[in-house]
Amino acid sequence: MNTEQLRADTPAVAQLIHFNNAGAALMPTPVIEAVTRHIQLEASLGGYEAAGRQAAEVEQVYRSIGRLLNAAPDEIAVIENATRAWDMAFYSLPLQPGDVLLTSATEYAGNYIAYLQLKQQRGIEIRIIANDEHGRVSLSALQQMLEDDRVALISLPVIATNGGPVQPIEQIGALARAAGVLYLLDACQGAGQMPLDVQKIGCHMLTATSRKYLRGPRGMGFLYIEKALCQKLEPVFLDLHAASLQSADSYTVRADARRFENWECNVAAKLGLGAAVEYALAQGIEPMWLRIQQLADYLRQHLGQIPGFTLQDPPMNRSGIVTFSHRQHSAAQVQQWLAGQDKRINVSTSTFRSTLLDMQHRDLLEVSRASLHAYNTETEIDAMIAALQALPRL
Amino acid sequence: MNTEQLRADTPAVAQLIHFNNAGAALMPTPVIEAVTRHIQLEASLGGYEAAGRQAAEVEQVYRSIGRLLNAAPDEIAVIENATRAWDMAFYSLPLQPGDVLLTSATEYAGNYIAYLQLKQQRGIEIRIIANDEHGRVSLSALQQMLEDDRVALISLPVIATNGGPVQPIEQIGALARAAGVLYLLDACQGAGQMPLDVQKIGCHMLTATSRKYLRGPRGMGFLYIEKALCQKLEPVFLDLHAASLQSADSYTVRADARRFENWECNVAAKLGLGAAVEYALAQGIEPMWLRIQQLADYLRQHLGQIPGFTLQDPPMNRSGIVTFSHRQHSAAQVQQWLAGQDKRINVSTSTFRSTLLDMQHRDLLEVSRASLHAYNTETEIDAMIAALQALPRL
Repeated sequence: MNTEQLRADTPAVAQLIHFNNAGAALMPTPVIEAVTRHIQLEASLGGYEAAGRQAAEVEQVYRSIGRLLNAAPDEIAVIENATRAWDMAFYSLPLQPGDVLLTSATEYAGNYIAYLQLKQQRGIEIRIIANDEHGRVSLSALQQMLEDDRVALISLPVIATNGGPVQPIEQIGALARAAGVLYLLDACQGAGQMPLDVQKIGCHMLTATSRKYLRGPRGMGFLYIEKALCQKLEPVFLDLHAASLQSADSYTVRADARRFENWECNVAAKLGLGAAVEYALAQGIEPMWLRIQQLADYLRQHLGQIPGFTLQDPPMNRSGIVTFSHRQHSAAQVQQWLAGQDKRINVSTSTFRSTLLDMQHRDLLEVSRASLHAYNTETEIDAMIAALQALPRL
Repeated sequence: MNTEQLRADTPAVAQLIHFNNAGAALMPTPVIEAVTRHIQLEASLGGYEAAGRQAAEVEQVYRSIGRLLNAAPDEIAVIENATRAWDMAFYSLPLQPGDVLLTSATEYAGNYIAYLQLKQQRGIEIRIIANDEHGRVSLSALQQMLEDDRVALISLPVIATNGGPVQPIEQIGALARAAGVLYLLDACQGAGQMPLDVQKIGCHMLTATSRKYLRGPRGMGFLYIEKALCQKLEPVFLDLHAASLQSADSYTVRADARRFENWECNVAAKLGLGAAVEYALAQGIEPMWLRIQQLADYLRQHLGQIPGFTLQDPPMNRSGIVTFSHRQHSAAQVQQWLAGQDKRINVSTSTFRSTLLDMQHRDLLEVSRASLHAYNTETEIDAMIAALQALPRL
């Protein structure tokens, strides 16, 4: 992994310090070029004609994502965004009244709302897996919960949006497989940040977004679904891409994971996602992951020493998402201070609304979130530390 | 309406003849610029930071679509594409076993598959409204069908994808309202091509795409939903944009039409859609509609006179979608012939798979489709006629 090359491919780093990679990372030049090149091609040939010309490149996107996840290309659906990719998987599951869903306290509130909706509509039951002493899902608690044969699904995020720990996803997968329980992973903050091998993890479904650690364009996401499960699930929405009409009374659903897609798509963004995945693979996910953890540890060490600031990460958090709060200033004030014209440091704010259960559990209303990527540097972190030290006291 | 200006804003017309506007139209320069400008802004500021900077422009998109349809901005949801916009509306309807859905034979097979899915899953009944002598929905047949109080929904396309007639959407609306039946319009081929006033039409829901006659980017669409209905429907998918989590056991759904959206979106494409709507409104939908019909009539008159070709439009088709077939050559062969390097004329092929019922009814396996927009010209049509006349006989 070559930091200088990463930064050369990210021209904006000359102007600003971007620590909002868990929101949306800066796209590297090859991604921007892939997107704008296709928009120009559409403008010069027509939308379908341009897609026809780039048909092989569009197919390549599935192979790239397959390589990223160690999955077969026909187990990949490229979907408008991670939310809809997750929805297409989750809402298509044949959950019945009395079925139990296990999740973690770190679950994203958006997914949790979907659980509540199916609780109301289909009578499923939601149970939260207790944390271990490191703030991760307790494997012994999970094992015990899996003894109840009403458990139908384990569904949780690889890394919480507000900087929770990296969950022990492979160990959870082994328990899920042993118990014959479906396993759905929301890898929005994991994809592009850390290695994700669906064979090793043992998940049946995994969803992720383009715009975060993968550094792809906004408005694009994907679903991995294991072949055997895919063919058993009828997607909650069907159209002429997912299925074909055989007669006035019958249709057939396509065999591959694209049954979860629909006809229309933003081809430019899809090609941009493909370019982003190829770029990440070329840099190496493993070395970027080590570098991200190194940078995040560096930030955590320094943050803990600034008077007035408290590091809010749970123990054992080793991801690039670093959370903290100030005794006097709100997270919005910290964000605004750092974004000032003389500093130009992008961080974000996570409120209790995004991860209600976890924030209640940790007695927090909000945190500031600095999310680091491999193209960031210690020098940039030093600049942020200096800016935080200079924050005026009230 | 100024054809010269329209063509000056569409640089590709110097290189090719684009008669695939019902597939995806050529984007005018202001649309391309809106999309690429925002991609560049994201690359230079970060995805969320760029969206924050353009927040007012993003809000403007709702007002623009509201103006296009004569709807309030809070009755508009901007969704990844028209298919998902339609899905979010249709699948969220509280259809019960025994409820009857009325549609037209011109229905798009993608929507029809969704009807069949709910027939299987919820036991709804699908009935096809008979055509009148012009190939449009028969209003007297519809009126009779509405006497059955099990009818819960009328759902049909404004203009069929394979060149069906423009449906009498206002008269259908009056009947739907009188009968107290919900009315969902798929306006994919209508939006941008013809005036659509939801107050006059009386529909409860209307969906459309960006990429066709509106000339916006691919991967973007929208839903109009009447305020009173919106607040009664819980969307089939919910997330943290559509709803908020109040406690571990309760959520509230937002009041406006954005309850049918989700958190993430391709902001560049959304701004591109907004630019496309503004562009269309500035040109004037009414004059463009008149011009499109004039051009289509011109093409129909000439097509009918070329030996070997048959115009396949049903009677009373006055839209810009012109369909035809050749005695010997397949539609794919015609498309390929016209696309040749010396001609560069884009048309498309509609197979029976896209509109199964209508094509069976008309005993057709496929048609060639030339779909004209207001930026097209008689000279371009003459070039296509000449190219078709030169088609080698087998």
